[in-house]
Amino acid sequence: MAKGELLTSAANPFLKDIRRAIVRGALTSEGCCIAETFHLLEEALRSNGEVTAVLAAQSAHPAVDKHVRRANGVRVFVLPDALFQKVSATESSQGVMALVRPPSWRLDQLFQGQPLVVVLDGIQDPGNAGAILRAAEAFTASGVILLKGTVSPFNPKAVRASAGSLFRLPFVHGVDPPLAMAAIEKQKLDVYAAAPHGRKSLNEADLRRKCAFIIGGEGRGVSAGLRAGAVDLKIPLSRVESLNAAMAAGILLYEAARQRTELR
Amino acid sequence: MAKGELLTSAANPFLKDIRRAIVRGALTSEGCCIAETFHLLEEALRSNGEVTAVLAAQSAHPAVDKHVRRANGVRVFVLPDALFQKVSATESSQGVMALVRPPSWRLDQLFQGQPLVVVLDGIQDPGNAGAILRAAEAFTASGVILLKGTVSPFNPKAVRASAGSLFRLPFVHGVDPPLAMAAIEKQKLDVYAAAPHGRKSLNEADLRRKCAFIIGGEGRGVSAGLRAGAVDLKIPLSRVESLNAAMAAGILLYEAARQRTELR
Repeated sequence: MAKGELLTSAANPFLKDIRRAIVRGALTSEGCCIAETFHLLEEALRSNGEVTAVLAAQSAHPAVDKHVRRANGVRVFVLPDALFQKVSATESSQGVMALVRPPSWRLDQLFQGQPLVVVLDGIQDPGNAGAILRAAEAFTASGVILLKGTVSPFNPKAVRASAGSLFRLPFVHGVDPPLAMAAIEKQKLDVYAAAPHGRKSLNEADLRRKCAFIIGGEGRGVSAGLRAGAVDLKIPLSRVESLNAAMAAGILLYEAARQRTELR
Repeated sequence: MAKGELLTSAANPFLKDIRRAIVRGALTSEGCCIAETFHLLEEALRSNGEVTAVLAAQSAHPAVDKHVRRANGVRVFVLPDALFQKVSATESSQGVMALVRPPSWRLDQLFQGQPLVVVLDGIQDPGNAGAILRAAEAFTASGVILLKGTVSPFNPKAVRASAGSLFRLPFVHGVDPPLAMAAIEKQKLDVYAAAPHGRKSLNEADLRRKCAFIIGGEGRGVSAGLRAGAVDLKIPLSRVESLNAAMAAGILLYEAARQRTELR
């Protein structure tokens, strides 16, 4: 087993910085997000993310070591279980936290191929944001824009829900809405706003064309300003007013992928 | 404003019973589930659920009263805000909790019309279970079976995520797998198990026929015993291993509804 540096004090500045990033749902001061499962560690190691360090709970140290062995030069820090638990604050932690420097993208890199862009407008739930990133990659979207006012994609819960897609799929976050819409307009995308009472029904939209889906926040929906420049698109539903935001996004993306492969 | 009975002690047996139900994610001893938003109260009042009582935080009492006025004979209990918060334990509570006796269904009532049944096998996350119930109603499934080992649909988080579908859509919970599968077999349904590496692709399945989807737990998937009697069905995905369980269920249901309406 590799030795791993032992950290035993909650006052350690490195650990305090990590704890702060977890509480704030943001990056560490060195620009790393926190990936809290073995699966995410694997995903980070085999993708564009740079794993800068790994924290292991003492009891999980052998397992962590086995995962990290393949990666050269990744520093492992070992913490007593109780201290690890205090830093992580994940109820069912696996005893591993990877610090991953996520890849960084320019807005214009989100429009590769036949563009299919997802725009998140006021999504608050990190689980929803992560699940949408995961579905966006699964259905070959070209990129995701998280507008200002949407939860950070680096919130550990979002990282976890993305199941690693965050380390591969082009995305930009904290974008001003006018800037995002200007980029989308420049690329001549059809712009759809997900809206329960939309004029256009999903089955009537030709999604083989270059397009963007705007997904609004839980409860509030897509903001009026953005709807003004978009076609309201509804998923045909019976009896129920609307769906969970992530599920709605997943269905729009599925339908786009279906049209793009089957109706070619 | 109606007076409402004032409750001021956390030791009140009625409140203790409610608190216990919330903590355990189950029904109260009187067989009621707890619906924690104004939206859910509305949904319960206009559907099959019987609202037996409503708890209001003192500050929300006027708003609760306005909602309840239309319903005859619903008892309102008013709690000091701090006590209400202690009972509810929802971080962003709206100050209202409705006790709703959910409608109860027999297994054979889940196969009305052209049956489309969703079977939940080991779903642990109450948010996922609720979101699936909501999607099942939205895409006109005929019923949902929650097998033993799946989270209770009466977990307040599941009730909330169902957005009221729990009060309308036929479902049965805590069902033994052999009993469920016998009922499904008797009805001659095509049985599909959602599986990332399934033999059959979603676009190849004829979902206009009577069918059932088995959705497996997060991480673990559909159990081997159930897969043996089903056709593995995959959603075509790129690069990503699988989707969130609720999203996968939503996409299967959407595709079934799409086929049933468009390809008629």
